[in-house]
Amino acid sequence: MPSMTKHDILSPVAASDSLNQQVSQIAILGTGLLGASLGLGLRAARFRGSIIGYGRRMATVERAKALGCIDQATTNLAEAVDGCELVVMATPVGVFTSLLERLADCGHPSLVITDVGSTKQQVCSDADRLLPNPTYFIGSHPMAGSERQGPDAAIKDLFDDKSCIMTPSKHTSPAATSLVQQLWGSLGMNVIQMSSAEHDQKVACVSHLPHAIAAMLMRLADQWDATQIASSGFRDTTRLASGDPTVWTDIFKTNRKQVIKAVDALALELQQFRKLLVDHADDNLELQLQQCKKMRDKWALEPEGDE
Amino acid sequence: MPSMTKHDILSPVAASDSLNQQVSQIAILGTGLLGASLGLGLRAARFRGSIIGYGRRMATVERAKALGCIDQATTNLAEAVDGCELVVMATPVGVFTSLLERLADCGHPSLVITDVGSTKQQVCSDADRLLPNPTYFIGSHPMAGSERQGPDAAIKDLFDDKSCIMTPSKHTSPAATSLVQQLWGSLGMNVIQMSSAEHDQKVACVSHLPHAIAAMLMRLADQWDATQIASSGFRDTTRLASGDPTVWTDIFKTNRKQVIKAVDALALELQQFRKLLVDHADDNLELQLQQCKKMRDKWALEPEGDE
Repeated sequence: MPSMTKHDILSPVAASDSLNQQVSQIAILGTGLLGASLGLGLRAARFRGSIIGYGRRMATVERAKALGCIDQATTNLAEAVDGCELVVMATPVGVFTSLLERLADCGHPSLVITDVGSTKQQVCSDADRLLPNPTYFIGSHPMAGSERQGPDAAIKDLFDDKSCIMTPSKHTSPAATSLVQQLWGSLGMNVIQMSSAEHDQKVACVSHLPHAIAAMLMRLADQWDATQIASSGFRDTTRLASGDPTVWTDIFKTNRKQVIKAVDALALELQQFRKLLVDHADDNLELQLQQCKKMRDKWALEPEGDE
Repeated sequence: MPSMTKHDILSPVAASDSLNQQVSQIAILGTGLLGASLGLGLRAARFRGSIIGYGRRMATVERAKALGCIDQATTNLAEAVDGCELVVMATPVGVFTSLLERLADCGHPSLVITDVGSTKQQVCSDADRLLPNPTYFIGSHPMAGSERQGPDAAIKDLFDDKSCIMTPSKHTSPAATSLVQQLWGSLGMNVIQMSSAEHDQKVACVSHLPHAIAAMLMRLADQWDATQIASSGFRDTTRLASGDPTVWTDIFKTNRKQVIKAVDALALELQQFRKLLVDHADDNLELQLQQCKKMRDKWALEPEGDE
């Protein structure tokens, strides 16, 4: 599937104009870091419609409202989506299935639904299975975030100049794809399209495995009583281990197969590295480190996402 | 062995005064990032003696001189150490053995020698074996650095408020230990003492293994064609992969056994993590992630080294 960047489609301003023409009301389901930042970002991008925030805990939704992230706060899903043209699921991934079940009941048939989840195959297949009209669902993964949590961590330019992966299914309508592209485009995101399967495989490698490794390195350092002498290299390598355990458990649960594949691939790399050490194959080791440095330096020069 | 922080010993100013009383000339062997930063740092800490820079390539040493990191530049080792009370080996670890052999010939018997290497067992045993008077050698590992290289990357406060591990052997004299403590103390470092064996085991875990993992994750991402969607989490986790391949090959060569042990421990962690996924033991997985987050958050609040 061809990828699409914001340069291929509309400028942020044009995307925002188009969004304003089609959408008078957006519901954001979940007002944590991502949901609340989405609200702030939409306002900064001159979205003129209403932004309804929904969550299970009134305190969190009210806090998001007090911070100016949303216009209205509710813990009633039917109320939240009533009158909306667009809904963004911004809860932890593990809540998506039950949200979709309930949206199937209370959403009107042409309500466009997307999400911000870090895994895509499960939510896309749930949408196909559960929604009365799955043509209006398209998965999104805005590659933005931080290890901080909650509406107080929200920032208006969290999404700006980052990548957003959209994963249309064979059912997704061009109209839904276009509308959700305008949503992310208005926030200054670079939109890339791929299948949910390709997405889940790639993020297993560059996001989920690094998270697991960060946690494991932290455990090891603790077991070896070595954190006292750990320094900034260790700090960077283990930063992801400070992420929300519930969010990450959901991610691992919903991308189990691909994460296992990535773990196996890394185990093989570890074996090969160990063999180089045992064999005193130091020239080969240096060559490999050179190749890795080259890849890293080249990649680090490219524009980045942020998560 | 009890650890020692700068609070137990002298303040940076007192350490600098004491250093000035005992040392009129220091030789820095190798004027890359660490050696050149050491020169700048000494000058900023009001060291009044001469700083002689030695290296194999005159261009690099001259560059360090032009940048004000050293007072004199030479490619002649005997000339460099002549008249010095203190020598700091700041070349890649792989050069230490031949430097010690040559210092055994040209250094005077009470010349205090230390180093800035990331591995300590080999250099300490080489010093014991090669130097006519090993009581004047003590290993140092200032936990400071960056992935940048060369004298142009030098900064005067590279060492300030970072940890420095000193690894005295059973031969090391209290006078040498004290002098080298004053050297690092004058730069504002927190000095910790431990055996070279303990040092090498712990850095294998918190520095060398994370470096190897960073390189492996980079290779995997490239193989899986996934770097396009990698974001800041991946950026942090792989930052170490941009380090100098020669320097790191030397480190792995001189800490082979401990790195292999660390690799094996991580392989076991990976297996356990895989089993949690395969068994759908999601509650246990979440519990582990919670524990790791707790450790990481606690550690991240502590003062850090930088490397």
